Amino acid sequence: MPVGLGPLPTLHPVTGFELGISSAGIKREGRKDVVVMRCAEGSSVAGVFTLNAFCAAPVILAKKNVVGEVRYLLTNTGNANAGTGEPGLQAAARTCAKLAELTGVPETAVLPFSTGVIGEPLPVEKIEGALVAALADLSVDNWAAAAAGIMTTDTQPKGASRQFTHDGVTVTVTGISKGAGMIKPNMATMLGYIATDAKVSQGLLQDLLRDAANKSFNRITIDGDTSTNDCCMLIATGQAALPEITQSSGALFAELKQAVLDVSMELAQAIVRDGEGATKFVTVQANGGATHQECLDVAYAVAHSPLIKTALFASDPNWGRILAAVGRAGVAQLDVSKIDVFLGDVCIASRGCRATTYTEEQGAAVMAKEEIGIRIELGRGTCSETIWTTDLSHEYVRINAEYRS
Amino acid sequence: MPVGLGPLPTLHPVTGFELGISSAGIKREGRKDVVVMRCAEGSSVAGVFTLNAFCAAPVILAKKNVVGEVRYLLTNTGNANAGTGEPGLQAAARTCAKLAELTGVPETAVLPFSTGVIGEPLPVEKIEGALVAALADLSVDNWAAAAAGIMTTDTQPKGASRQFTHDGVTVTVTGISKGAGMIKPNMATMLGYIATDAKVSQGLLQDLLRDAANKSFNRITIDGDTSTNDCCMLIATGQAALPEITQSSGALFAELKQAVLDVSMELAQAIVRDGEGATKFVTVQANGGATHQECLDVAYAVAHSPLIKTALFASDPNWGRILAAVGRAGVAQLDVSKIDVFLGDVCIASRGCRATTYTEEQGAAVMAKEEIGIRIELGRGTCSETIWTTDLSHEYVRINAEYRS
Repeated sequence: MPVGLGPLPTLHPVTGFELGISSAGIKREGRKDVVVMRCAEGSSVAGVFTLNAFCAAPVILAKKNVVGEVRYLLTNTGNANAGTGEPGLQAAARTCAKLAELTGVPETAVLPFSTGVIGEPLPVEKIEGALVAALADLSVDNWAAAAAGIMTTDTQPKGASRQFTHDGVTVTVTGISKGAGMIKPNMATMLGYIATDAKVSQGLLQDLLRDAANKSFNRITIDGDTSTNDCCMLIATGQAALPEITQSSGALFAELKQAVLDVSMELAQAIVRDGEGATKFVTVQANGGATHQECLDVAYAVAHSPLIKTALFASDPNWGRILAAVGRAGVAQLDVSKIDVFLGDVCIASRGCRATTYTEEQGAAVMAKEEIGIRIELGRGTCSETIWTTDLSHEYVRINAEYRS
Repeated sequence: MPVGLGPLPTLHPVTGFELGISSAGIKREGRKDVVVMRCAEGSSVAGVFTLNAFCAAPVILAKKNVVGEVRYLLTNTGNANAGTGEPGLQAAARTCAKLAELTGVPETAVLPFSTGVIGEPLPVEKIEGALVAALADLSVDNWAAAAAGIMTTDTQPKGASRQFTHDGVTVTVTGISKGAGMIKPNMATMLGYIATDAKVSQGLLQDLLRDAANKSFNRITIDGDTSTNDCCMLIATGQAALPEITQSSGALFAELKQAVLDVSMELAQAIVRDGEGATKFVTVQANGGATHQECLDVAYAVAHSPLIKTALFASDPNWGRILAAVGRAGVAQLDVSKIDVFLGDVCIASRGCRATTYTEEQGAAVMAKEEIGIRIELGRGTCSETIWTTDLSHEYVRINAEYRS
């Protein structure tokens, strides 16, 4: 059961961005496993991609071609086309070429995305065979169906949408996402697609996406593993009746930036809420760092500690495990006598020791909740970082141990 | 059940090194929880200590005083005296002072070691009350009893012993260890004590220990957490009828070095074999690195991946998870097309792709074993590193989630 994740919210259509879903029967006959997205002519497209050195064939192609004119995004589930070498690259290119041929755009205007089993050859013919139906299905109203169509091991579709009005014109930002990176290994991958009808240059769009991803998708972790296929795309169709938005657009730029960030954050947190075996949604905040990096190091040391994650699963306010994780985070010249740790609003450790005001009952009350905050005050500077994670449950082991067997 | 860990081997006494065990009733009435070790006058003592910034009070004291004359090591279980601030330092000092008073040595000649619950005040009076009985129990033949006496959540005592002969004189190296660092959080801590009757200067002894620890205790990982209390000590009593061993002692030096390494390795691996919920003993080897650090980065990325650990638990030859972990290890300019991965002797991935010769049956046969080797060939240079770890089982989650509750 996902933690605090309700049914899909209303996903407002984005003029100039259509989605079509069909079934190639890659893993199971009849399953919706192919999604085609069409961007209106003149759209700008930005992307952020996995840093895993073993990035999959579609990622290599999408990364290369995102800088040019992009008209179609082609996503399949059920096969990641990763660890497949040169034949994998050719397979991804073939599916793009087929879609280009059917739609009369250059092959480089189609970006491929794959998620699923690693190391199996991509079933090119099956995907090619599903393209006509997907194209026939294209509609601006298909966000919810596409959110379901890109799911692999997700238990719920994930989407978010924001609108704001400027000079009487409504601007929309809508997005969908799937499955946290590598939380289900061979059915891996985080994918995110966000579109807006604002008009934004490719360069600025890339900046907006990078900034939003660094505060959302790049701040979530289930188990510390990074997929070979992670991608997040941001498309600006420019169909809203507004001039191009630049960094000099003042409030309009700020509103768009905030809407992109809000949608990214909601999509990213939805991935954590639906993390494998998750029973808790945990916010880890490291404040008072001398650098952003040391805040991240501390937050990730806490978020990745199996001991803390099992304590969270058990609703056990085990503050010693948190102190120990902070202590091994590798922060140079860490003065433990300046560190305070809070569980929710409860101070559990003050100046490196158990807080004199702390009682187990207070800690237990926070830990009993589904949404838990861990805040570490380092007392070294003014930098802050926040990340989101889950607990480590029996269900996580069961799912990951029993998968494939 | 520990993986491939039999009953204690014969632990040869070390002349000049006596051990005494008694009960202070720290956690449970009657439990042997205090161990005193006496080093003959003129002994050299070396130590390596946790790098966790939150190091416990006894670690701070032991680290400070190990450079002087050391005559006694005082260990208690049941309380880690960690996260206890200034009062904790005073408490540790008081137990040392009491033992010094009883034995007529300077207070600084007693080094304290604690393992157990974090953040609780050390029960100084209970420990003081147990010292007379421990001193009365001192004997060179007490290694096995001491191995049991330092246990916390270990399911079996751990010891190792080597002897070699030089000029007709037998030299002995014997050691004991307990519980892997932070594999059981609040009953944390890896402790190791190794003694030899060879005569070695403090400086050289420290070099020998650091070198051995870097190849053994510092190459094991259960869950990536590092205790606040980890220590390993090496004592040379100089009671064997041989001249002092120096780096110029040729074969004699080499034999001693090897014996210390062998004992360290056996003790370290015993900790992994008895890791929490362990059902597999896993050797991860990264070869062909440009630097030792990148080999370690790759090996730890594999050893710490919950996805790989759950696959090991499930005996699932999930090679995609291994490639993905190597890819995210953070090695700069990693050329994945040069990487080979072996499971035991079976090549599962060649030049970054699934090996054409590989079959799931071959992989499954290796994974079905209790002892599993994962070897990654990076093809970048000549450096190698090996580490040892376990799988991630239901039992791990159960133990760590249910502990304290």
